[in-house]
Amino acid sequence: MSLIKFLEILAILAGAFSGFAEARRKRMDVVGIFTVAFITAFGGGTLRDILLDERPLFWVAHQEYAILIFLLALVAAPAIAMMRKLISERLVVVADALGLGLFSIVGVSQALEAGMPIFIASMMGVITGIFGGVLRDIVCNEIPMVLRDGRPYAICSFAGCWMYLLMTKAGIPGDFSLWTSALAISLFRLVTWHRGVRID
Amino acid sequence: MSLIKFLEILAILAGAFSGFAEARRKRMDVVGIFTVAFITAFGGGTLRDILLDERPLFWVAHQEYAILIFLLALVAAPAIAMMRKLISERLVVVADALGLGLFSIVGVSQALEAGMPIFIASMMGVITGIFGGVLRDIVCNEIPMVLRDGRPYAICSFAGCWMYLLMTKAGIPGDFSLWTSALAISLFRLVTWHRGVRID
Amino acid sequence: MSLIKFLEILAILAGAFSGFAEARRKRMDVVGIFTVAFITAFGGGTLRDILLDERPLFWVAHQEYAILIFLLALVAAPAIAMMRKLISERLVVVADALGLGLFSIVGVSQALEAGMPIFIASMMGVITGIFGGVLRDIVCNEIPMVLRDGRPYAICSFAGCWMYLLMTKAGIPGDFSLWTSALAISLFRLVTWHRGVRID
Repeated sequence: MSLIKFLEILAILAGAFSGFAEARRKRMDVVGIFTVAFITAFGGGTLRDILLDERPLFWVAHQEYAILIFLLALVAAPAIAMMRKLISERLVVVADALGLGLFSIVGVSQALEAGMPIFIASMMGVITGIFGGVLRDIVCNEIPMVLRDGRPYAICSFAGCWMYLLMTKAGIPGDFSLWTSALAISLFRLVTWHRGVRID
Repeated sequence: MSLIKFLEILAILAGAFSGFAEARRKRMDVVGIFTVAFITAFGGGTLRDILLDERPLFWVAHQEYAILIFLLALVAAPAIAMMRKLISERLVVVADALGLGLFSIVGVSQALEAGMPIFIASMMGVITGIFGGVLRDIVCNEIPMVLRDGRPYAICSFAGCWMYLLMTKAGIPGDFSLWTSALAISLFRLVTWHRGVRID
Repeated sequence: MSLIKFLEILAILAGAFSGFAEARRKRMDVVGIFTVAFITAFGGGTLRDILLDERPLFWVAHQEYAILIFLLALVAAPAIAMMRKLISERLVVVADALGLGLFSIVGVSQALEAGMPIFIASMMGVITGIFGGVLRDIVCNEIPMVLRDGRPYAICSFAGCWMYLLMTKAGIPGDFSLWTSALAISLFRLVTWHRGVRID
């Protein structure tokens, strides 16, 4: 439980950081910084919950996450230059890859529990993993990066979701399937990113 | 039943094609192509179902449609040049007009069944008919074409939805109203498009 | 009741006007003008109701509001130049500030009634107050103004929502808290706007 919690917070922080960075780059004010960080961190899970008609939304059930991002947004503008030195780009990519893996697998397993057919469940996993970034880019008036940069990202999520679905069908215990698949997505993302693999 | 199925698939294909074409024009990768096609084909119906709070969503209940678009996206990039020769622009406009008619009337009739007041039902029809294209353009970072090109499109849908509502109020059998109105929307769109009518 | 109704209509009109103005500036056709006005006036409340899973949506329950905007859109294009002389920019800002206050407080009180935790309730208030304008700017292919112009807007809403929450916790009667907080938001917005206060 505490490891999930830790990784979930890492995932949310990774999303929030990329939101902070993008909002600063677009010269937004403090309200914009908070809003973009919030949308990036919670957008994918919120869309998943709306599509599955599940309530309360996960950031409503975990009010502390929203408060955390609110407090970070207050200090983000002055702190981001300083943090940039402590937190290298590599670390952000690693945290983001962990987030992609974890969010995707949580999404696919929730969709299965909600009785979705198998292909739809895999898509719900991908949506949960990537949609925060898509919404961030739409609000910042950009074509979503995941749709155009030609690097494997959604594909890593899709492959890992199917790995989870096949392991589950094969009767492998849920916890093991969940961790292995989430890790596989993160590794797939990190290895292809490091090697500069392209898919376009 | 089989004719509805056939037209529904045509409508979804028309949406997906315009998504493929726009995503290629924006030089998106394969993930972008699939995502934009999916959003264009299913965006309107999904928003309608969320606004009406109906579940399961129609692409969840018809998993095969999502799989079809997934398979098409895999071959779209190499095939689209080839298909362009087989499928003329005129054919795409015809399929799209059929889709507009069918999606709109399905939307208005579902909204009536869900107990919506009559003006709201007509708007649900228009939303179902046009919103896929609106979302496609937002994701592709354009002002939605239907809001700015000055050609009758949403208006065709709106007029046909009221035709259906009036026929239903007049006690005309549902099947006949449904087909006549959907056809009227498609013809209205095709005739005004062919003649270059403008509304701005 | 009649005063709420009057202010609510003012708030919706303010949203619709800013939608008309933006859609004209982007040279949209009559369908675009109606759509953008509708999204601006009802976007925030619709997102709130979807996040809280409340149905019917408030513009479905009040069909007359949607019809009002539809009729206004028909005359907006020719009339907007004329209205500009009757309705000064100052009046639009005042109406918009009233709308921000009223929508925000209605949002936070509905979220409380729906059993949301307190910080989430304050965010629902802000979302209801500002999201119409955010959606307007996304559809018009702009970075949302509230996220980048550096003037207090969302912050006014946020402060007023907390004022309402604290008054409610302190046992002050609902009606009084509601009106005082809504008015405080409007005044906070108007005074900072008039004085040119900046937050970036």
